[in-house]
Amino acid sequence: MPTKTLGQLAEYVKGKVIGNAEIEISSVATLDSANSSDLSFLANPKYTRALKTTKAGAVIVGKEVVETQIPLIIAQNPHYAFAQIVVLLYGHRQHKQTGISQKASISSSAKIGNNCHIHDFVTVCDNAVVGDGTIIYPNVFIGPDVKIGSNCILYPSSVVYDGCILGNNVIINSNTTIGKDGYGYATHKGIHHKIPQIGKVVIEDDVEIGGNCCLQRGAIDDTVVGAGCKLGDLISIGHGAKIGPHCLLVGQIGVAGSTTIGHHCVIAGQVGIVGHIKIGNCVSIGAQAGVINSIPDGSNIVGTPAIDASKARRAYTLIEDLPEIKKAISRFEKSSNNE
Amino acid sequence: MPTKTLGQLAEYVKGKVIGNAEIEISSVATLDSANSSDLSFLANPKYTRALKTTKAGAVIVGKEVVETQIPLIIAQNPHYAFAQIVVLLYGHRQHKQTGISQKASISSSAKIGNNCHIHDFVTVCDNAVVGDGTIIYPNVFIGPDVKIGSNCILYPSSVVYDGCILGNNVIINSNTTIGKDGYGYATHKGIHHKIPQIGKVVIEDDVEIGGNCCLQRGAIDDTVVGAGCKLGDLISIGHGAKIGPHCLLVGQIGVAGSTTIGHHCVIAGQVGIVGHIKIGNCVSIGAQAGVINSIPDGSNIVGTPAIDASKARRAYTLIEDLPEIKKAISRFEKSSNNE
Amino acid sequence: MPTKTLGQLAEYVKGKVIGNAEIEISSVATLDSANSSDLSFLANPKYTRALKTTKAGAVIVGKEVVETQIPLIIAQNPHYAFAQIVVLLYGHRQHKQTGISQKASISSSAKIGNNCHIHDFVTVCDNAVVGDGTIIYPNVFIGPDVKIGSNCILYPSSVVYDGCILGNNVIINSNTTIGKDGYGYATHKGIHHKIPQIGKVVIEDDVEIGGNCCLQRGAIDDTVVGAGCKLGDLISIGHGAKIGPHCLLVGQIGVAGSTTIGHHCVIAGQVGIVGHIKIGNCVSIGAQAGVINSIPDGSNIVGTPAIDASKARRAYTLIEDLPEIKKAISRFEKSSNNE
Repeated sequence: MPTKTLGQLAEYVKGKVIGNAEIEISSVATLDSANSSDLSFLANPKYTRALKTTKAGAVIVGKEVVETQIPLIIAQNPHYAFAQIVVLLYGHRQHKQTGISQKASISSSAKIGNNCHIHDFVTVCDNAVVGDGTIIYPNVFIGPDVKIGSNCILYPSSVVYDGCILGNNVIINSNTTIGKDGYGYATHKGIHHKIPQIGKVVIEDDVEIGGNCCLQRGAIDDTVVGAGCKLGDLISIGHGAKIGPHCLLVGQIGVAGSTTIGHHCVIAGQVGIVGHIKIGNCVSIGAQAGVINSIPDGSNIVGTPAIDASKARRAYTLIEDLPEIKKAISRFEKSSNNE
Repeated sequence: MPTKTLGQLAEYVKGKVIGNAEIEISSVATLDSANSSDLSFLANPKYTRALKTTKAGAVIVGKEVVETQIPLIIAQNPHYAFAQIVVLLYGHRQHKQTGISQKASISSSAKIGNNCHIHDFVTVCDNAVVGDGTIIYPNVFIGPDVKIGSNCILYPSSVVYDGCILGNNVIINSNTTIGKDGYGYATHKGIHHKIPQIGKVVIEDDVEIGGNCCLQRGAIDDTVVGAGCKLGDLISIGHGAKIGPHCLLVGQIGVAGSTTIGHHCVIAGQVGIVGHIKIGNCVSIGAQAGVINSIPDGSNIVGTPAIDASKARRAYTLIEDLPEIKKAISRFEKSSNNE
Repeated sequence: MPTKTLGQLAEYVKGKVIGNAEIEISSVATLDSANSSDLSFLANPKYTRALKTTKAGAVIVGKEVVETQIPLIIAQNPHYAFAQIVVLLYGHRQHKQTGISQKASISSSAKIGNNCHIHDFVTVCDNAVVGDGTIIYPNVFIGPDVKIGSNCILYPSSVVYDGCILGNNVIINSNTTIGKDGYGYATHKGIHHKIPQIGKVVIEDDVEIGGNCCLQRGAIDDTVVGAGCKLGDLISIGHGAKIGPHCLLVGQIGVAGSTTIGHHCVIAGQVGIVGHIKIGNCVSIGAQAGVINSIPDGSNIVGTPAIDASKARRAYTLIEDLPEIKKAISRFEKSSNNE
């Protein structure tokens, strides 16, 4: 692990040191668990009191002045500064330089770029294209006619069905399924007939998809995950859904078919969004919300059914008071009957 | 792609042409994205206005008369007619005729039918039986004593534990787990002791199971998915649950152990159903509902706790009014105290 | 299947026979489906009436006296007694003694214990350690530097990312992902930058993880699943979450990052728990609850937002009455305006 002085780290993140810039930092830790060689960070001012008890060697903080003896880096965006320092000190995951395994099954019609690493027990089907520098871990399946860009990582047991397209720098985590058929059946006399799903899944550049997700291919139009989106784990995306660029979808979310989502939305855990609606740009949706109507740009919603967060926080809390409300109403009824 | 005239397509679906029956159709598209060689369809009358702006060459509609210049196919069930035409023009997914790979591991005691295609890195364990025409994609695991019918498709990385039974024409999508042990532990002095789960999973004919689902084997009685059921993605089925024939389970649904569900039920996304209850036939359950009691035939329920949909839609919407209700009650209290 | 007399079984579970101790028992069944050679059990007194109709040869019951002619075993903990008998009669799953397959890819720097069974198409990466008697099914991926204890079972297509640690007697079911990166991004000028996740996942002894789960590695501190925990299927555990020993997490649960959970908690299906809170010991959380605040020891909560179960059961049921409440309030408003 490389060691840096606090001053070097501050310079690296364009921050300012308060205190001893010469202390040596070799690692990062949470405020609670840090010791004197650790750098920690305070992104949320509500935890400021933790600065009084932490044993960290130094802490990255935002602009606000804080009463503490601990050396500080003041950074405009302490979370981002911390991220940069973690990358500097630890780096991203190192992948073994395996080259292309003899135990992988790669179609002779597939095109594999330069500097790819394709592990054992990988299948790359006919006419698939894999860009330069892409890493494919064991037991991955790349279907026929799939196109994968450069510098992607496909973790073990991820599956990409035929014809889907991944951009550059895409990360697919383990046990995730890309491009299985959309949920499309036409019911006739009580029998559900499968409708061929002729769209595909398009994942744009710089997207990370978590583990155990399932993205359906489009019924007719493609399912799209926009550039820079980050999806957590166990997420279900319906056929023909279109997610705009730079959205954050945390985990266990369901987006039903044909719904479109704008850019820079933040969708918390276990949210469900019905099909055929339009979520605007920069919309924030609270955990477990059920969204059944289109939502304008910049909204902040929560609850099932989802309503404006400023209203919802109070409204949903008052469910607890329903027994008391009922009693009050009975009392009023009685007293008005007695009048 | 084959080209057909509108008249040929109408005849194929037993529909009637309004307008020019000679136009050539080679593909399908949504009303929004269609151009003049595309056929589109209107299943839901509430989108009828889209007929005014679509550039589709022709549209399939239901019986109702519509004011438009676009050539139409009138079909009794436009969604089904559309499905038939998509099959005609595009066909279902073509699977490569691989035969039985030398890189698959197939037990000498397994019985493999005729015309099966078993890909690389598949494991078929002792005494397993695979019916004629079944396709098993890479990295699938077929446990000991499993019985799989004819013309099934198991997509990559799906797993079938020992002894489970799949009927004919069953489709299992990627990363789905069939027959892992039911969640069964007996707690004694704070320790949870695993109970052997001696039932299995039985999947009847013509079922499709989506991606990333997990179906538990029965604790004692089998877990059953009835003929013709279609399960979406990320669905969890508990041990001993029995789902009747021809149900639709959309996605991210949880059905807890020992619950029985009748035939032709429709269960929307993220629904949770507790264990040991009985859902009748033809029950419809709205998205995110929490079902904690047995439900009679033909019910239409929604909400947590789930109640009759006709009531629920209004009731749940009124949660938003709780702050106002509270204020009104305070006002009444105050005025009655002042009297 | 071995046959035992009722007397032998009662002795085995330290119970007492009421009725004929000589009857032969070879199998177990539910009260509904049992016949005369089956033993059944009644754990929940609310189903006592089923004793009148069951055709079981004998039934295990708790201490309470029951009016029935059927031979009984009276056991202090009938569920546990039943579990012991199922193990006696059926045993746990038998695993084929495959040894270490030539078709597995095992790094020369990995250390494999004695009596391990490693199936075809398994990958064990550099410096991984696998303890004695551990069974690794096909298509499992064991990343670099992973440590797995003794007598573990990893079912097909489970994945363990680099550096994670599993104790002894751990069971990981199919298509489960252990140790993928935590959901950690720092957003700067609208771009989400990936933060290396330097923690790992630690799974202590005697844990079972269900199918299709996804456990994130820690951002900084490790993610921990305590000894004896039993997780169901499709569960999502966030980075740095710490689950105390002997918890039961039923299925489709989401625990967000950095939350800590005490020991012996019981968390029902589809529960969501936000990040950075503290759930006490012996807490019980009802199905579909949304937990947004820290919870003291011994609490029993339910609902979204989660509140005390004794209050919640009535409060949430009254949502149904909101339309009526609204009407009553309108009536009061009107009559008070008229006064």
